[in-house]
Amino acid sequence: MNNKIKDIYHKLKEEGLDALLVLSPANISYLTGFLSRDAHLLVSSKKNIYFTDSRYIQAVRKSLKGCLLKEADSNGFKHFMEAFYKLGFKRLGFEKEHLSLALYQKLRRESAGRGITLIPVCGIIEEFRQIKNEDELEKIRFACGIAIKALRNIKDFIAPGKREIEVAGELERYLRYAGASRASFDIIVASGPNSSLPHHITGSRKIRDNEPVLVDVGADYLGYKSDLTRVFFSGRINTLYRKIQDIVHKARDLAVQEIKPGKIARDIDFLARSFIAEKGYGKYFFHSLGHGIGLEVHEGLSLSPKSDNILKSGMVLTVEPAIYLPDKFGSRVEEMVLVTRKGCEVLSGALDK
Amino acid sequence: MNNKIKDIYHKLKEEGLDALLVLSPANISYLTGFLSRDAHLLVSSKKNIYFTDSRYIQAVRKSLKGCLLKEADSNGFKHFMEAFYKLGFKRLGFEKEHLSLALYQKLRRESAGRGITLIPVCGIIEEFRQIKNEDELEKIRFACGIAIKALRNIKDFIAPGKREIEVAGELERYLRYAGASRASFDIIVASGPNSSLPHHITGSRKIRDNEPVLVDVGADYLGYKSDLTRVFFSGRINTLYRKIQDIVHKARDLAVQEIKPGKIARDIDFLARSFIAEKGYGKYFFHSLGHGIGLEVHEGLSLSPKSDNILKSGMVLTVEPAIYLPDKFGSRVEEMVLVTRKGCEVLSGALDK
Repeated sequence: MNNKIKDIYHKLKEEGLDALLVLSPANISYLTGFLSRDAHLLVSSKKNIYFTDSRYIQAVRKSLKGCLLKEADSNGFKHFMEAFYKLGFKRLGFEKEHLSLALYQKLRRESAGRGITLIPVCGIIEEFRQIKNEDELEKIRFACGIAIKALRNIKDFIAPGKREIEVAGELERYLRYAGASRASFDIIVASGPNSSLPHHITGSRKIRDNEPVLVDVGADYLGYKSDLTRVFFSGRINTLYRKIQDIVHKARDLAVQEIKPGKIARDIDFLARSFIAEKGYGKYFFHSLGHGIGLEVHEGLSLSPKSDNILKSGMVLTVEPAIYLPDKFGSRVEEMVLVTRKGCEVLSGALDK
Repeated sequence: MNNKIKDIYHKLKEEGLDALLVLSPANISYLTGFLSRDAHLLVSSKKNIYFTDSRYIQAVRKSLKGCLLKEADSNGFKHFMEAFYKLGFKRLGFEKEHLSLALYQKLRRESAGRGITLIPVCGIIEEFRQIKNEDELEKIRFACGIAIKALRNIKDFIAPGKREIEVAGELERYLRYAGASRASFDIIVASGPNSSLPHHITGSRKIRDNEPVLVDVGADYLGYKSDLTRVFFSGRINTLYRKIQDIVHKARDLAVQEIKPGKIARDIDFLARSFIAEKGYGKYFFHSLGHGIGLEVHEGLSLSPKSDNILKSGMVLTVEPAIYLPDKFGSRVEEMVLVTRKGCEVLSGALDK
């Protein structure tokens, strides 16, 4: 287990918990440094135990450090509860956002008759994950760099006659050659009117002449994610689109300029949103301005109208203002921004240079 | 909504439910024919309502048929509960395997003081999903066809010096050109000793001379998945590997021959497993023989030692015996098999022809 674990021990003590049952794969990866799936983890200051099933045991044994390993059916908590009980523990915290009601019922059955109290907790590890350390930042920078290269690389491929899904296919291939283990989410390639759908499902539509082609892409590098959006054109860009895009870019600049420690998330959102509204397009920007990113594409805070999260040095956020004109087109630009001690650094800043 | 919905109404009545809150994206897709995400669905014989957030509304409005559409925060159940209450309903079933304890608490809060009873249910829609209709089979056949083509296509690309992740990148690209919207799971390319890990994470290892390269790949075609495994060689195949592979292939043949309606899943598993054990490799085959497949890569029954599921006409299963020799190599072959009225059809049968 890495250094982060000590913060968790401290937190467990504060919350009056003997141990925590960690269920979120991202949280387990964060604590162990091992890219985990189909596993659960017992964390306590006495002992840390990683439970996984036969398909993973051999791989885990080689890579996992500072943690006991036990084979267990990933759907059951029998072995987990036996271990917890043997340690003489009574109060077990578990991640209520990452446990289905069905599995909670199983957990309760396994704990029955042992004097164990189950305590639902929420966001303990996620809170720590918001502030990235140097090692994490290095991985995020690398993931961001891969997405930048992929976007630069795809520019010349985009042309009338190509299908959206072919553009996505080329990007998928390129990400891996550039060092990603996978795309960090389903790549969005939205051509022409499809760009007016914020979460368009990339399909078989052929790109036509003089259309915008919105590309939203990210890389997964050793578990850490990137997420960037740019719009390309299959020919000329029309006057209305140019106007809309300028507003979107200006909104991004306004937001980015204000990002620094101590700022409240909703105030950053407000800067971009109110600028777009002043220009008359307020109702065409209807999602959040951005989100935290790290081991998950969406994690930690949200830059949205109601968010009272306070920005802190070490947070990494996306900033992605947009305007979607139904059935016409949409414009979005998405950056990744690191909150620094004095302000911020646009991690995707090299993209347009 | 499609025809399947009537079976669900009948089931709700049987279970004494006024309506069902459907949470699983695959279940929602099954009922609506629309590839859903970040949504929840109210199903009742009076009314069906699809709830999703602003990012999806425009796209959903165009594609969703036979279902009311309401905008809602996908994390909350306020609008859902208001609709349920207005319909005069009292007894609400919800999918307990697809609701986290945290969201269950939210659901309970929204239902409080309205005389509503929340009833956890499990597998209602999944049960129906096991038997594929003609339309579903057509999509599964197509998804299987894409994976077959991708495997044939990659054969010549595999050579000493290529990295595993590059092989995966080419496959990712090819799947999309062949009509897939995405890979149905992270493609496994496991070279040399990595092939001894059943769920190897495809990495940057370079393929060496005369090694096995295990490729496990599937396509997602209109929501329906395929999942096939083959092993290729970067040169000659050694005698031990040939022997192991022959056992694995024979185990597959033994299992496939016995697949027909009325058979018990564990008996099919036993045929393959006991054959491998007779040959002295029992402890090196430690996962299930196969699993149901459809809108999810793993769904419905499992072909495993304890499974008492009964095979029925219209089910689609994988059959994937394997032998993993730690630190040496692994051999696996994976087919997709449709249970027919009189026996079965190997959907991936064209692959080795």
